[in-house]
Amino acid sequence: VASADLAAHLARILGPGGLITDQALTSSYETDWTGRWHHRAALVARPRTTEEVSTVLRECRQTSTPVVPQGGNTGLVGGGVPREGCDVVLGLGLMTSVSRPDLTDMSLVAEAGASLASVQAAAASVGLEFGVDLAARDTATVGGMVATNAGGTHFLRNGAMREQVIALEAVTADGSVLGAVPGLSKDNTGYDLASLVCGSEGTLAVVTRVHLRLLPSPEERAVALLGFPTVSDAIAVLPALRGVPELSAVEFLDSHALRLVASHLRSTPPVRTADGGGCLLVEVAGPSGCSENLLDAVAVLGSGVDTAIATDHLSARRLWRWRDSAPDAISAVGTPHKLDVTVPPGRIAEFEGDLRALLAHAGPQATVLVFGHAADGNLHVNLLGLSPQDDTVDAEVLGLVARYGGSISAEHGIGVAKRDFLSLTRSARDIDLMRRIKQALDPAGILNPGVIFASSIP
Amino acid sequence: VASADLAAHLARILGPGGLITDQALTSSYETDWTGRWHHRAALVARPRTTEEVSTVLRECRQTSTPVVPQGGNTGLVGGGVPREGCDVVLGLGLMTSVSRPDLTDMSLVAEAGASLASVQAAAASVGLEFGVDLAARDTATVGGMVATNAGGTHFLRNGAMREQVIALEAVTADGSVLGAVPGLSKDNTGYDLASLVCGSEGTLAVVTRVHLRLLPSPEERAVALLGFPTVSDAIAVLPALRGVPELSAVEFLDSHALRLVASHLRSTPPVRTADGGGCLLVEVAGPSGCSENLLDAVAVLGSGVDTAIATDHLSARRLWRWRDSAPDAISAVGTPHKLDVTVPPGRIAEFEGDLRALLAHAGPQATVLVFGHAADGNLHVNLLGLSPQDDTVDAEVLGLVARYGGSISAEHGIGVAKRDFLSLTRSARDIDLMRRIKQALDPAGILNPGVIFASSIP
Repeated sequence: VASADLAAHLARILGPGGLITDQALTSSYETDWTGRWHHRAALVARPRTTEEVSTVLRECRQTSTPVVPQGGNTGLVGGGVPREGCDVVLGLGLMTSVSRPDLTDMSLVAEAGASLASVQAAAASVGLEFGVDLAARDTATVGGMVATNAGGTHFLRNGAMREQVIALEAVTADGSVLGAVPGLSKDNTGYDLASLVCGSEGTLAVVTRVHLRLLPSPEERAVALLGFPTVSDAIAVLPALRGVPELSAVEFLDSHALRLVASHLRSTPPVRTADGGGCLLVEVAGPSGCSENLLDAVAVLGSGVDTAIATDHLSARRLWRWRDSAPDAISAVGTPHKLDVTVPPGRIAEFEGDLRALLAHAGPQATVLVFGHAADGNLHVNLLGLSPQDDTVDAEVLGLVARYGGSISAEHGIGVAKRDFLSLTRSARDIDLMRRIKQALDPAGILNPGVIFASSIP
Repeated sequence: VASADLAAHLARILGPGGLITDQALTSSYETDWTGRWHHRAALVARPRTTEEVSTVLRECRQTSTPVVPQGGNTGLVGGGVPREGCDVVLGLGLMTSVSRPDLTDMSLVAEAGASLASVQAAAASVGLEFGVDLAARDTATVGGMVATNAGGTHFLRNGAMREQVIALEAVTADGSVLGAVPGLSKDNTGYDLASLVCGSEGTLAVVTRVHLRLLPSPEERAVALLGFPTVSDAIAVLPALRGVPELSAVEFLDSHALRLVASHLRSTPPVRTADGGGCLLVEVAGPSGCSENLLDAVAVLGSGVDTAIATDHLSARRLWRWRDSAPDAISAVGTPHKLDVTVPPGRIAEFEGDLRALLAHAGPQATVLVFGHAADGNLHVNLLGLSPQDDTVDAEVLGLVARYGGSISAEHGIGVAKRDFLSLTRSARDIDLMRRIKQALDPAGILNPGVIFASSIP
């Protein structure tokens, strides 16, 4: 799609290192993290400032060149890599600065390409923490996390990225700058454009800088890994766990996922689960003494639950490794179809049963591994052994999710992976309103076409 | 604007009690809480269901009749009462149901006309609490609070209404239903229309039902009222207070507001402030034992600070009364211009000094009373003694706020009161994007014209 003219123009504007066209160098921008989506990039533009982002978009608009914005390329729905008809990548990787935290209002400003880990480190340097955490922290970027409204392991307590954003700056398709940073925590002056950009997956604007809320660091943290003979047994304790003061995470792995992680880590799981069972990882974090809340809750679970508890930092990290390693363990053995869904938390066990029954017929060749954020009803259904481009099994699973009153995307977004299934859980009216908003902000349809909506130009 | 035909039509659709045209009965819908905005209502439609809201809006759309949605009529910027060219009120006062709280995901569903107090009571009945609180709790409605993204006294800990909304149902100008309740806490399927409706002040859709997050109730609560000889002294302790674990509110009243409240309550303030000084109300709420955090923090403030502390429920409510009564105390003596602004929290004292200096010239006839949410930098600047319709002094104050890098509306919204000043703190580009969104969702401009945007049809 990109013309040689455009490339020459951008090379002049962006200077040395600002434009990549050499195929040996563009390759790292071309394949998504799962390996399911791949397409050649005609060029990768790497701006260093908001002004350069604006200039790149203006050039693309003038030449009707579609653009895919890319952060750390840790997305899981194909929304951040090139595709047919959209092969110009706008890489935010050179915009990585993170401001010193402001202690008065507990916040910092990060550029879009800053990694989650760098934001966490800046917060920790002043005794604070950032509210969102996820396994890809070293690579995932602030801009990508805002664009996909990333959730992660502390959603239960802190919400998703949208809840961490005080204000943002972004560039719309015509090169105009939307918003401003730093902003003000309390600002009810018209529509909340920042919330709208959060989760819009690069289709409305390119995020350039974000003013992020920070939180007090917990004084104490304790983690329990609990093994259950059946998934039902594990899910049955969720309501009791929800009442534990200072609860910060309740994660789930089924026995199949746990076994694969064990093999990946070359280690024995610290708790026993029967085949067809599962485990929960439960964390409390808060003021000094809060570990007792977890110990008390675990004490009443009964003898059928196998338990490992960590109250010091190192042991806690060791237990978290069993949950955090699941994506890598799966990717190490194949190219998964990753279906990130929400079902009502109380019905997780029933759903997993129906899921396995459905797949026994619809996808007998698939290995099914389920893990996720149990308290949020958020399951990552990973299917191994399917052809990357064939989504007939995905359709069956997402249809089941819809029948459960669930969501076909809890935290990964729609991307290209689920655009054909959006109407399963969103009404025709909602989708029509989304299209009208897309049309209002990007009338030429150059921002990430093919993502969220099935047709490129709404 | 409304024709007799429309009235007859709506009377048939809405049945007995569903339509009010009798001037004796419409009057309570015609004047806003401050008394500054008043206009005759041609009719008040009072639907009982989402379907009836939809029918009313379809009728209005077909007859090009502008509509002002109204909840509890506790708004402070004239956005919820009739005005020239918009005299049909859509009152949500008959839609008041509140569901039983769902304990598994800690939430409930409330209709738009349910009062904040009824939501709080439903939460309390199962040992939970709702995240937003404000003095108008008995009258303010869920729908109005969503439409204005209400903040209140616990914003510091819980955020505004937007952060409490899991999902919502609303009706757009053409009578279509947007969203659905109950929703799912974690749902990244396209643009977040619910967040966009929050704070849109009835200009994009009429909120009908809201799925609200609930929070664990604190086991313990403690409140301190602190009197300072100068505003600077009060603001100087903010950074230290921000670090207090389980902090849930830091409120401010200047000595003038405190004196007026004392006269209104016919009582003597529990703490001393010099003339030109002020007081802070500080609250911690959390697990058993958390009161100690407040006592420790107060202990190190030094002997210049006069202190009253409450650790039991009744005494805590008595101290809160000094802050909660400020709006009533002011309204009892006149019709205030209420300017709800944000400035950087660290610069509150400096701002108040500049504000008084400015008003000594620009509005020497005005009595200036300042209170608000100190930790958020959110001040309610109340001006008594000004003509209701003359906003030249308002313009001066809001101009000062803009020079401080502040916001002209922290939590009350823009309404009609500040529509001419929106460009002081929002860029032309942001306002243009807002207008495009308004145009996309309400092309005929029948929803609350004259609110947010200076011209009725964008």
